[in-house]
Amino acid sequence: MRLTSHVALASRAFGASGFILADTADEHLKATVEKVTKSWGGNFRFAMGKPWRNSVSEWRSKGGVVVHLTIYGENMQTSDVLHRIRDSGKNVLLLVGSQKVPAEFYSAEVSDFNVAVGNQPHSECAAVAVFLDRFFEGKELSKSFENARIRVVPQERGKQIKVKHGF
Amino acid sequence: MRLTSHVALASRAFGASGFILADTADEHLKATVEKVTKSWGGNFRFAMGKPWRNSVSEWRSKGGVVVHLTIYGENMQTSDVLHRIRDSGKNVLLLVGSQKVPAEFYSAEVSDFNVAVGNQPHSECAAVAVFLDRFFEGKELSKSFENARIRVVPQERGKQIKVKHGF
Repeated sequence: MRLTSHVALASRAFGASGFILADTADEHLKATVEKVTKSWGGNFRFAMGKPWRNSVSEWRSKGGVVVHLTIYGENMQTSDVLHRIRDSGKNVLLLVGSQKVPAEFYSAEVSDFNVAVGNQPHSECAAVAVFLDRFFEGKELSKSFENARIRVVPQERGKQIKVKHGF
Repeated sequence: MRLTSHVALASRAFGASGFILADTADEHLKATVEKVTKSWGGNFRFAMGKPWRNSVSEWRSKGGVVVHLTIYGENMQTSDVLHRIRDSGKNVLLLVGSQKVPAEFYSAEVSDFNVAVGNQPHSECAAVAVFLDRFFEGKELSKSFENARIRVVPQERGKQIKVKHGF
């Protein structure tokens, strides 16, 4: 499950509001994500165990769109799919799976968009990060996370962090 | 090692010319990467087992620059570090580690630049992908990989691939 923790933490770092681990529960992952959020700030929601169908239908019933990240989808570099997603003005749920995903993920009943972060095989972690970086036009990397106990002070050399008093 | 294979495949998909797994050998990883390159095309070099110091010093002796990706470095969104790297006009070796890296990685003897793909904890896979996506200004995702046996034909719905005759 180490990879899943990378996907969850990349989601947080690149500006997502939360992460849902569908269909399964992983207490270790939950603890990892919550520990990072507690130390590094922000309000990142983490949920797990709920069937993916329920998460998707709840999201859609609240007016959000579902974007399935897949190598087979519309290439976000060569098509206008990112503009169409942004122009919808709706909240976005990114849907990613590991190796094999149900065929329904591609259907209009589940995904409003099938988006390829390139049409080469790579990694769901990379796909989520690059999608979000482009979606937010890079601004997420300069955002300050509220109530952080630890902050990095960027340096050309070495490491510097600021730790909040009382931590 | 599943995570390392994601880093290697993301490197390839986002435009790197090759990947070096330093200090250790992993035949399974090598086979995974070579299989992907054979099927999906391009000339992606893979090396492993050489001490990281040797790879770094060889790279530098050939006039290349070393960019260490680290949460503690100059933020690529809020600083001009990416411009400085590009302006050097030199070949770039990205240096990434898992959890703990040697302190020397931060030193001028090893790294020309310490770059943070954001100053929040996430993933070396995400860091490599987003760094390369920005470095190549997204163009890597539209690049055609030579001698590919399999190509995806991007679709709004479903999956379509073209398999080269004789494969």
